[in-house]
Order: sequence, then structure tokens, then C-alpha cells
Amino acid sequence: MDMRALVGENFARLRKAKGLTQEEVEARSGFSQQYLSGLERGKRNPTVITVYELAEAIGVNYLELLTPSDDTRE
Amino acid sequence: MDMRALVGENFARLRKAKGLTQEEVEARSGFSQQYLSGLERGKRNPTVITVYELAEAIGVNYLELLTPSDDTRE
Repeated sequence: MDMRALVGENFARLRKAKGLTQEEVEARSGFSQQYLSGLERGKRNPTVITVYELAEAIGVNYLELLTPSDDTRE
Repeated sequence: MDMRALVGENFARLRKAKGLTQEEVEARSGFSQQYLSGLERGKRNPTVITVYELAEAIGVNYLELLTPSDDTRE
């Protein structure tokens, strides 16, 4: 399982489903738009605390960022 | 949610359920017994890739390390 891609793809999908831009997430959290852009491109390897904070920033449960959705399943 | 404690408690519980000692996990993986001891005491903040590798080291799904069990539920 490519954990970088999994978290990135889930975050992008859920962020868009919430109607949020990366800039809006930056404004409401401590994460820079640059960090979020890299995350969504599968370039980051966040810690479990960072995943929890990312989930809070877009109002989802952290497990939603870590669970394969239908299109990221192996 | 205390993610350090969550991962640590789940890892300890599942490791013991598999009948493995920290030393045995050290021998079959790249993780030192010292790292594992700190993890189980809730002192580590592993990345998602490390969580995946920890799960593989004891033969469980990585989501089992990240999901609150009945006694760690908030």
C-alpha cells in the first residue's frame, strides 16, 4: 500500500467534497498551501498526529484519510 | 484523541495477541526493542509509512493500529 498516495488522494477528495480550496484550508489550519499541495500529490509522509490534525482541518474523521476508498483499493 | 497512546496501546495488545515479544519483533523487523518499548508507552509519533511497517512486522492490518479498540475509545 502506498501510504503517501492513500492519504493524499483521500485528503484531496474529502477537501473538495467539503467545497474547500487548499488556500481555505491553509487559512483555517497551520498547514501551508505548499504542504497541502505536496500532500495531495503523494509527496508527504505525515505522522499520525499530523493526519489527525489534517482531518480536523477539513472536518472529517482521521480514519477517513487512512482508509482505502473504492478507487485507491490495492 | 491521543494518537501516540492509541497506536502504542493497539500495537502492544496485538503483539501480545500474536504471542510475540518486543525482542522477537526486533529480530523480524527493522525496529529496535528500544523503539518498540517507547512506542508502546505512547512516546512515539510514527509516520503513516512506519505504522504500515509496524503492522506488517506483527502480521496485522495497519488500520488495526489506528482504530480505537473498546478500551481506547474516547
